[in-house]
Amino acid sequence: MSRKRIPFGVMLQGPGGHMNAWKHPSVPADASVNFEHYVRAARQAEKAGIAFVFIADGLYINEVSIPHFLNRFEPIALLSALAASTASIGLVGTLSTSYSDPFTVARQFGSIDVISGGRAGWNAVTSPLEGSARNYNRDKHPEHALRYEIAGEHIEVVKGLWDSWDDDAFPRDRETGRYADFTKMHRLDFKGRFHAAEGPLNLGRSPQGQPVLFQAGASDDGIKLAGRHADAVFAGSESFEQNRELSRKLKQSAQAHGRQPDHLKIFPGVAPVVGSTEEEAERKYQEIRALVTDHEALLYLGRFFDHHDFTAYPLDDPFPDLGDIGANNFRAHTDRIKRVAREKKLTLREVALNEATPRSRFIGTPEAVADELGRWVEGGAADGFVLGFHVLNAGLDDFEAQVLPILEARGQHRPAQFGTTLRDHLGLPYRDSRYAVPSAGTGEEAA
Amino acid sequence: MSRKRIPFGVMLQGPGGHMNAWKHPSVPADASVNFEHYVRAARQAEKAGIAFVFIADGLYINEVSIPHFLNRFEPIALLSALAASTASIGLVGTLSTSYSDPFTVARQFGSIDVISGGRAGWNAVTSPLEGSARNYNRDKHPEHALRYEIAGEHIEVVKGLWDSWDDDAFPRDRETGRYADFTKMHRLDFKGRFHAAEGPLNLGRSPQGQPVLFQAGASDDGIKLAGRHADAVFAGSESFEQNRELSRKLKQSAQAHGRQPDHLKIFPGVAPVVGSTEEEAERKYQEIRALVTDHEALLYLGRFFDHHDFTAYPLDDPFPDLGDIGANNFRAHTDRIKRVAREKKLTLREVALNEATPRSRFIGTPEAVADELGRWVEGGAADGFVLGFHVLNAGLDDFEAQVLPILEARGQHRPAQFGTTLRDHLGLPYRDSRYAVPSAGTGEEAA
Repeated sequence: MSRKRIPFGVMLQGPGGHMNAWKHPSVPADASVNFEHYVRAARQAEKAGIAFVFIADGLYINEVSIPHFLNRFEPIALLSALAASTASIGLVGTLSTSYSDPFTVARQFGSIDVISGGRAGWNAVTSPLEGSARNYNRDKHPEHALRYEIAGEHIEVVKGLWDSWDDDAFPRDRETGRYADFTKMHRLDFKGRFHAAEGPLNLGRSPQGQPVLFQAGASDDGIKLAGRHADAVFAGSESFEQNRELSRKLKQSAQAHGRQPDHLKIFPGVAPVVGSTEEEAERKYQEIRALVTDHEALLYLGRFFDHHDFTAYPLDDPFPDLGDIGANNFRAHTDRIKRVAREKKLTLREVALNEATPRSRFIGTPEAVADELGRWVEGGAADGFVLGFHVLNAGLDDFEAQVLPILEARGQHRPAQFGTTLRDHLGLPYRDSRYAVPSAGTGEEAA
Repeated sequence: MSRKRIPFGVMLQGPGGHMNAWKHPSVPADASVNFEHYVRAARQAEKAGIAFVFIADGLYINEVSIPHFLNRFEPIALLSALAASTASIGLVGTLSTSYSDPFTVARQFGSIDVISGGRAGWNAVTSPLEGSARNYNRDKHPEHALRYEIAGEHIEVVKGLWDSWDDDAFPRDRETGRYADFTKMHRLDFKGRFHAAEGPLNLGRSPQGQPVLFQAGASDDGIKLAGRHADAVFAGSESFEQNRELSRKLKQSAQAHGRQPDHLKIFPGVAPVVGSTEEEAERKYQEIRALVTDHEALLYLGRFFDHHDFTAYPLDDPFPDLGDIGANNFRAHTDRIKRVAREKKLTLREVALNEATPRSRFIGTPEAVADELGRWVEGGAADGFVLGFHVLNAGLDDFEAQVLPILEARGQHRPAQFGTTLRDHLGLPYRDSRYAVPSAGTGEEAA
């Protein structure tokens, strides 16, 4: 069969993606700070032929944060420890462009790329949480558009610093005593509005040329930034049509920046729940849903609506009319909640529980889930997926045992990595330096 | 025998401490970016009972940098990968307070402490290199005194964030559904002149209570800062008397801050060269000295003297009269060079080669080196040592095979760690939280 092979990543965020995943018996309750838990999951994924692990992050917590966000590893420290604990799986981690220095970011991901033999990826985010500013000595969290401007410069500096030295800049010739060839060193001398760095970076090029650059965010600003810089985009998965449209826009944006559209990959995040029958899958979903109490679900819902107190309403009345509440921060999301509640005549309890445990379209029998994953890739709505299991251990076990063998039989997966680097796994070429003579096929963005 | 046990650290900076260590046949030429090289050395040190590895750092390079500084790992990435590759050795790394955010620093070292089971240490430095500012979007590198003010606030924030959660703040009780006990959470709400952080940190207390805090710098500002905050100080080793005096001042400074003087340890950096006879040791030293050409030595010397061009002088004439040149940046050091050259009537060649390969007082037979190390500890000039071998592999092999057995026979060493955490290895108590009820003996700085 000539079906496309589907690269998968697996989200490692402690016990899983669900807000109360820590309560599930299949995971250690302290998973978010249990390094052995991460190692086991990463090795299991590696053995199953999953292309990369993906570490999310956040820079602000308070009393209503998701429990396992209160106490979690910092992504660089975690990724690098995982680099030493695995052999071939890719290692992608989130780091905010709003609250970091490009020189340090370039060194840290560059180092992980070298340590891991070419398996590092940076998920560059602008940080959505207002409170982050107060942990980083800033007057205020920058507005959306400004955050993306800052991000653009930040990424430009990081990528520039990664090209500080040509691939062959270090002859290290003991006969002649020549360690470095300074004609192959490049000072960046970048001076922007928000960032500046003279360079060179005190680290040479890494096995992938540059670590893989992921980016999240499907806004117009995000699409523009991704088209210019990203190798891959981490997206939502609300609907096939929406993602196909996003994919089209992203590839167009890449093309507009003189790049091959196929060199920008789109990875929707999905949360499969698999059962041998429809009923078993539904039972598993309900089991996860039951990890949340009504009260917790109401508090969780409140986070999107400026911490509105939903406990004041009768639980089984229709979802209340909130007027403008929720329009400030997560507008697209709160508008959708209001619309769906109205259309489907949902009660407050239903809305809250649905939000706390979203019912994705990737629930069902292994065949149904494999079909749907295949349909997205064949139909241009995805190049691969990030598996954000509600509960990591149970989810990964089921997916490995039941879905991957079907995809393998269909020629869409195999339990081994694509190559040695993360770029290999994702079907991305080695990243030539901006100073390299363009070579056929991979020389994009050489100018 | 009731001699004090001597904790050792070993400096891992690629091929070694010598500027041309990469040329030595015992090390890989690419050691500074060769992760396997680091793992081998860390495991060898661990097996030999050495208490910790120590990673130095720098944030600026140019054409006259020490070769293996041009291309090196970032310390957080390296330490964390080493955490996963070792079992009991301490992991100390340098990170600048002038070019980092305390919230990130607290997370990164805190994470490494958890991942490693309590083996992390932060060497807080203020960065001596002017050029660093240009890699970090700053107008200028802050002056010495200001750097120490900034460092004081930075460290205060990091230590404060490390106490965000009490030791027992996370019951994670699946029965009651209670993950965190918010009465045991503390917002720092720090607002200083240079740093601010609201907190809490999104990471609980680590196995050591807090990672070990190292500090370098023997200036009055440095001594004040160390007395207030540090667990250990990384010092020079020019003379026994100087170090005994520094040790006295440091312990006095700790006491002045209401701490037990014995809870601030002093670790001079030493570069032992061991041979079975005096002559063999001298031969080994000369072999290392020969790694540098006269020309390289002159360039190296120039770095301390505002890049003064020493190649313009006859090599075998007496060291030239430089007037005020060199008074700007490394004054104490350049003054000493001038004085010694005058007193000992050295030629320019001799001065340059001596600078490039300093002849430490730890050169000689294993017995002589062991005697001198013991004398420093017994005499109050050191609590332990950081072994900064000129050439890592050759130096560590010799020290392990020849010096450690003597110290072991004398009861000053054993080929096993002191305990499970770095604090154990160094004879430091668990670090109680500032919010904990003071317990006898370890409650210092509880207020």
